[in-house]
Amino acid sequence: MNDARSRTESVFRYVGGEAPVSRPDEIAAEEPLEIRIEGHSVAVVMRTPGHDRELAAGFLVTENLVRGAGDIFDITQCGRTMDDSVVNVTLRNPQAFDPAKLTRHVFSSSSCGVCSKATIDAVRQSFAAITNGLALCAETLLQMPDLLRPQQETFERTGGLHACALFDLDGKLQAVREDVGRHNALDKLIGHGLLTQQLPLRSHVLLLSGRVSFEMMQKALAAGIPIVAAISAPTTLAVEFARESNQTLVGFLRGNTMNIYAGAERVLTPPSVP
Amino acid sequence: MNDARSRTESVFRYVGGEAPVSRPDEIAAEEPLEIRIEGHSVAVVMRTPGHDRELAAGFLVTENLVRGAGDIFDITQCGRTMDDSVVNVTLRNPQAFDPAKLTRHVFSSSSCGVCSKATIDAVRQSFAAITNGLALCAETLLQMPDLLRPQQETFERTGGLHACALFDLDGKLQAVREDVGRHNALDKLIGHGLLTQQLPLRSHVLLLSGRVSFEMMQKALAAGIPIVAAISAPTTLAVEFARESNQTLVGFLRGNTMNIYAGAERVLTPPSVP
Repeated sequence: MNDARSRTESVFRYVGGEAPVSRPDEIAAEEPLEIRIEGHSVAVVMRTPGHDRELAAGFLVTENLVRGAGDIFDITQCGRTMDDSVVNVTLRNPQAFDPAKLTRHVFSSSSCGVCSKATIDAVRQSFAAITNGLALCAETLLQMPDLLRPQQETFERTGGLHACALFDLDGKLQAVREDVGRHNALDKLIGHGLLTQQLPLRSHVLLLSGRVSFEMMQKALAAGIPIVAAISAPTTLAVEFARESNQTLVGFLRGNTMNIYAGAERVLTPPSVP
Repeated sequence: MNDARSRTESVFRYVGGEAPVSRPDEIAAEEPLEIRIEGHSVAVVMRTPGHDRELAAGFLVTENLVRGAGDIFDITQCGRTMDDSVVNVTLRNPQAFDPAKLTRHVFSSSSCGVCSKATIDAVRQSFAAITNGLALCAETLLQMPDLLRPQQETFERTGGLHACALFDLDGKLQAVREDVGRHNALDKLIGHGLLTQQLPLRSHVLLLSGRVSFEMMQKALAAGIPIVAAISAPTTLAVEFARESNQTLVGFLRGNTMNIYAGAERVLTPPSVP
């Protein structure tokens, strides 16, 4: 099966000692997408085609360029085919958008002095910390990877995609997005939330198929997500960020085990038996 | 064991049905590094500390800003501690460096028209295709993952780092670099090649611990590497790029099997027995 998210190519399969055999192999699609605001190019991302309008919407939320669906007038894709590689976002209040402000995400100040502060400022946005006191059962978290796996359709066929999933507090799967880039997968999921008027995602759990960096935690916070769980490891800065932002961060969610790195009070576990 | 590449934090370990237990856990370090050329900030990368001068050197090679060790006058890190978050590169010929040219990697032209061309130009550099006709035995490739694994020191302890390794054509491991970012790990490895006067790496094999995107293939080409092998899957654009650049691309290098996606003539296999 092929869709925009994968393509079949002829490859040589080699099994030790035997002559290589040519056979078809399904490969995860990667194509550039240019995101524009009011015609100004703000980013080129290497993404898996599909859900491009969501990707653009989510990118704008997590880069702190829009706050909700009300800020967006329209999202259009140039051309008429699935190959479209440009998405343009028009705003309700275009006067509020200043392209000159964008560069700070990429190029920080060249003034030295307080080095590390200048640097971290370049990557850190200012989203409000989580304030709510909700919680869910540890057992509900443990079931999530098994619910995600059958939904990772393109990963199953290609082995090449990251996945992000949104669950409610009862452990019900709400949405899944896959992409060759883990940041894109999350931006698509958040863009889906924006376009379906669900932002902020205050009573949701984000499940990540891979590792958790600082930037993934910051994107989750941009969407108001209080609980992030991952199959694999977090980084030190992801843990620091979660603690500062009052987010819950769970890693190595595998089988019947997990590590809780931050916000453990939101994970309800059986009482200790003396 | 802790070094700059990891840090021990207290986390809650939960095993299904039991009360969570607080215990120390080693986490892969992630910190921002600002790369400057002649005092101009050109990038902030989220990296695992260590080999920062190599990272800066490799970044400059793969972004097509310098071509060899001869272009660099010096690489210095601000401050005196391991926390240093700024690296400044000075050039032998500073007049040849134009900061204005840098923006094209991030912001492509905002003129529409030939959409996809404008977009792909923003991410694609112009490195010369591989021209050499070297080859190695398939069995040599199959042994590489087993040689890499014991060298992935920080991954073993944290589960959070990508690794890149450089091998010669006899399958001898030359260098390994680890990082939370796969691009950084490769930039560090290429920077190591530059600083040890080995560029271009024309008779080397690059082994990647994870997946292969377009950008990884392009970075390999920037360093002149003809053969790239990965434990996991490539993307469509990685395969396309390898074929256009006359690079060999091997994926799913596991056990005694592999898929050869491009440049199969460089992988010597037993003759077919009728």
